[in-house]
Amino acid sequence: MSLCTIGVDVGGTNIKLGLVTSSGRIIAKTNLITKSYIHHPHHLIDALVAAIRILIKDNSKRIEDIAGIGIGLPGLVDVVRGVVVFLPNIPGWRDVPLCVMMRQKLNIPVFLDNDVNLITLGEWRLGIGKGYANLVCITLGTGVGGGLVLNNALYRGEAFVAGEIGHLPLNERGPRCNCGGYGCFERAVGNHFLQKKAAGLFRKKHIRLEDVYVLARGGNRRAIQFWDEIGTHIGNALVGVVNLLNPRLIIIGGGVASNYRFMVQAIRRTIKVRAMKVQKEMVAIVQAKLGADAGILGAHILVKEAILGR
Amino acid sequence: MSLCTIGVDVGGTNIKLGLVTSSGRIIAKTNLITKSYIHHPHHLIDALVAAIRILIKDNSKRIEDIAGIGIGLPGLVDVVRGVVVFLPNIPGWRDVPLCVMMRQKLNIPVFLDNDVNLITLGEWRLGIGKGYANLVCITLGTGVGGGLVLNNALYRGEAFVAGEIGHLPLNERGPRCNCGGYGCFERAVGNHFLQKKAAGLFRKKHIRLEDVYVLARGGNRRAIQFWDEIGTHIGNALVGVVNLLNPRLIIIGGGVASNYRFMVQAIRRTIKVRAMKVQKEMVAIVQAKLGADAGILGAHILVKEAILGR
Repeated sequence: MSLCTIGVDVGGTNIKLGLVTSSGRIIAKTNLITKSYIHHPHHLIDALVAAIRILIKDNSKRIEDIAGIGIGLPGLVDVVRGVVVFLPNIPGWRDVPLCVMMRQKLNIPVFLDNDVNLITLGEWRLGIGKGYANLVCITLGTGVGGGLVLNNALYRGEAFVAGEIGHLPLNERGPRCNCGGYGCFERAVGNHFLQKKAAGLFRKKHIRLEDVYVLARGGNRRAIQFWDEIGTHIGNALVGVVNLLNPRLIIIGGGVASNYRFMVQAIRRTIKVRAMKVQKEMVAIVQAKLGADAGILGAHILVKEAILGR
Repeated sequence: MSLCTIGVDVGGTNIKLGLVTSSGRIIAKTNLITKSYIHHPHHLIDALVAAIRILIKDNSKRIEDIAGIGIGLPGLVDVVRGVVVFLPNIPGWRDVPLCVMMRQKLNIPVFLDNDVNLITLGEWRLGIGKGYANLVCITLGTGVGGGLVLNNALYRGEAFVAGEIGHLPLNERGPRCNCGGYGCFERAVGNHFLQKKAAGLFRKKHIRLEDVYVLARGGNRRAIQFWDEIGTHIGNALVGVVNLLNPRLIIIGGGVASNYRFMVQAIRRTIKVRAMKVQKEMVAIVQAKLGADAGILGAHILVKEAILGR
């Protein structure tokens, strides 16, 4: 495939678009602000189509030069039918046949998947997970997501909702979670809860996690302890994943993962203490490598494999 | 394949052997007592070889009529190399190249796997799981085991130890477990712990779980409550599995599962209350169907698929 692809990463705040060469190099990027287009799915679709047309034209490409468009979305996507079933954080998106709609407007094949699945796909094929058959990718942010590569394939589950590491129970009892359950892992390490926890710890009304990071870098004990505790929670959740799935690699990504260096020791320590012998001896905990580009690159891989196979 | 197979299910107490037709019907069975052969792996291997020869001869078959032998073992098995890496409950079994040793003696191809994987394979291809692409099988007994069928294939993990549902953490803190960790699911629902719990509840030095079953059948409130609590623990562990793997089916098997009818409501209730919407709406909780034959039939499928593919 000497053709390019276009990778789109739809987030609750930004929409990132990239023009990607067949070898997986991003040669141009552009951005949309999500909230400008939330009044109706059609607005967002029209904006995507316009941005894609400009991206193609500005880089002296033609429609025929684009093998396909891959789109990652923050919610439930029917990968086979090409339908966005539901986006919890973008109003109005219910059962939108995005594949067909975009293809009609652009005359380019379109492929969809969940955003975390595409980050996982990107890290697996082009990032830190290259060559591994069994890995787990976890994204730490406002929500805590997960993607699974098992037996050398992305595992999506029966209804495309597998990988919800954020909603592993951390304890048999615990605080209510947005998902409807309680005691979920996300309730201990999601951004909002970390901010609250930090505000309490440092007795400030508002403290940004970036500030706690800077404090930890400066050697502040309470800040270091803060990240260590988060790492322990993450480790406790990952013990279950390690024992159940026996992966070779666990990739830690997402915004909160910028504090990786202050959490990784606690994560590794907890797994070492709690997980089963064979499982823990072979699993490596690593930081994601592709950063903010992972979604675009995963979308590129999605297109490439859908058209060419592996 | 009009040839027969021989399925062997090695347990800590009994070893079951079955002669199975190509269509998956067991036409003859035999048994060995495990503890008679624990002095050295060679004793057990010789006993297996002798029992297999008798099984073939007594049923008027010849060596050439047997397509292969499948053996399930309670421990860590290297499926690819055909080596028993370690059996925690049968002394002396470390890195035994069982495949080669048996094949040399019998001149029949031999295939190995973990016992719970074979139970899962049996239930998936010949039992209650027939036709499902994504299912989880859990075996409740002295230990709590698990097998995973994902994307239409048995998932064994990076080192063949995936599926350890019994060692999902139930809480961030908890009692020490045999596995070296703590707070494991098995520590709440393994046979020994249930017996202790029942003894305390009914203020008897020894009470068998069968007795608690009979009491529950007779309407005894404490006994019914006992099984309901066990079901709740099982449900709490399965919430994580359901959210993470989005299976279509969860099969409950093993000895303790004979109390299925007194536990299933609590299991379903807990999943309904705690698991995520899409995941919980599609997952069915069912009882295993093949009973004590599941291991033999799974071993049969292992041979069949190794030789013929699917």
